[in-house]
Amino acid sequence: MKGVLITLEGIDGVGKSTQHRLLEQRLRETGLTCIVTREPGGTAIGEEVRQLLLKMREEEMALETEILLYAAARAQLYKELLRPALEAGKIVLCDRFIDSSLAYQGYGCGGDLNYIKKVNAGATEKLSPDLTLLFDLAPQEARQRRGNIDQKSEVSDRIENRPEDFHYRVREGYLKLAAANPVRIKLLDASLPAVLLLEKSWVFVKELLEKKELL
Amino acid sequence: MKGVLITLEGIDGVGKSTQHRLLEQRLRETGLTCIVTREPGGTAIGEEVRQLLLKMREEEMALETEILLYAAARAQLYKELLRPALEAGKIVLCDRFIDSSLAYQGYGCGGDLNYIKKVNAGATEKLSPDLTLLFDLAPQEARQRRGNIDQKSEVSDRIENRPEDFHYRVREGYLKLAAANPVRIKLLDASLPAVLLLEKSWVFVKELLEKKELL
Repeated sequence: MKGVLITLEGIDGVGKSTQHRLLEQRLRETGLTCIVTREPGGTAIGEEVRQLLLKMREEEMALETEILLYAAARAQLYKELLRPALEAGKIVLCDRFIDSSLAYQGYGCGGDLNYIKKVNAGATEKLSPDLTLLFDLAPQEARQRRGNIDQKSEVSDRIENRPEDFHYRVREGYLKLAAANPVRIKLLDASLPAVLLLEKSWVFVKELLEKKELL
Repeated sequence: MKGVLITLEGIDGVGKSTQHRLLEQRLRETGLTCIVTREPGGTAIGEEVRQLLLKMREEEMALETEILLYAAARAQLYKELLRPALEAGKIVLCDRFIDSSLAYQGYGCGGDLNYIKKVNAGATEKLSPDLTLLFDLAPQEARQRRGNIDQKSEVSDRIENRPEDFHYRVREGYLKLAAANPVRIKLLDASLPAVLLLEKSWVFVKELLEKKELL
């Protein structure tokens, strides 16, 4: 497809949303337009699935149900937004994509990686991002950042002592994905100040856009 | 697993619900207890997914999204109800199961049958029903029966002239599934009076329960 799909990945609290905003701004300053979206969600149906995932998180949702719901939202995003945009030659910035399912439901929760890959390949006609920016940060640091935002959940996290393990496994999963896909996935040190991190990201984005003759 | 899973299949309007009720009653009269459930749904999360599927039906939901949502509800039903019940040696009567996805989203809508099979195998640890009662009826007859229940949708069906084609393909799909799985799927003539149809179904159910030494 003519367009470009750039995905942003990383554990919660690494500053993905900020980088997303800064990248969008930089693209605009460069004279380029881009479409921004997020997962799960990005479409009316996807947002409903997102609500269902968030609402149900406290109940015992089967891991396979979770995997399939994320993929269902993704299939809708692909059909409704990603495919038409990429076919039209647009630049799409997507906050989370299939790597999130592999990192969270796969490495984090112990789900079958091959199953997650197959389910998602069929949901997106095997779409793979042109570039994935992986913002990496130690789980304790990310936790601290999250804690600043939501003091209450920080407290309950500490009591249960489970989230840190979980985020640790998710981060390790992301690093394995990066090692296995060194061309597509670019590892970025999210402990850097936001503006510096943007410059690091921009190097990769610029290179891709030049290669695709969009810049 | 020690228990028995019996699924009921067929296009809308063949009288599945009536047979479901009659079979449950017959099992009770025989001194057996059974668990009855339905798809999509059967669990709190599954019913939410069902609502999402029903609510969205008028919007353009991607076919893969539909396939994945049905499978998500099924994964939850499997984990929460089917597996524990079957492990405990129970008899479960389930209104629709994987064959519905193959018949409707596969044969009816043109979805990839292999993808549907893989997605659902992973959602249910490859669970296959011990017996599937397929209630077969010509689409025009089923339509007439549905029409008696819902006059309004019957009218809109007639205008669009799409549903009859669709149900025709779904029925053909069911017949192909029956031909490919002659031991598991028993084809029943749903044009017979309900009580007679029950007797025909009961022959297969009884045979299975005797084989499993539950009767």
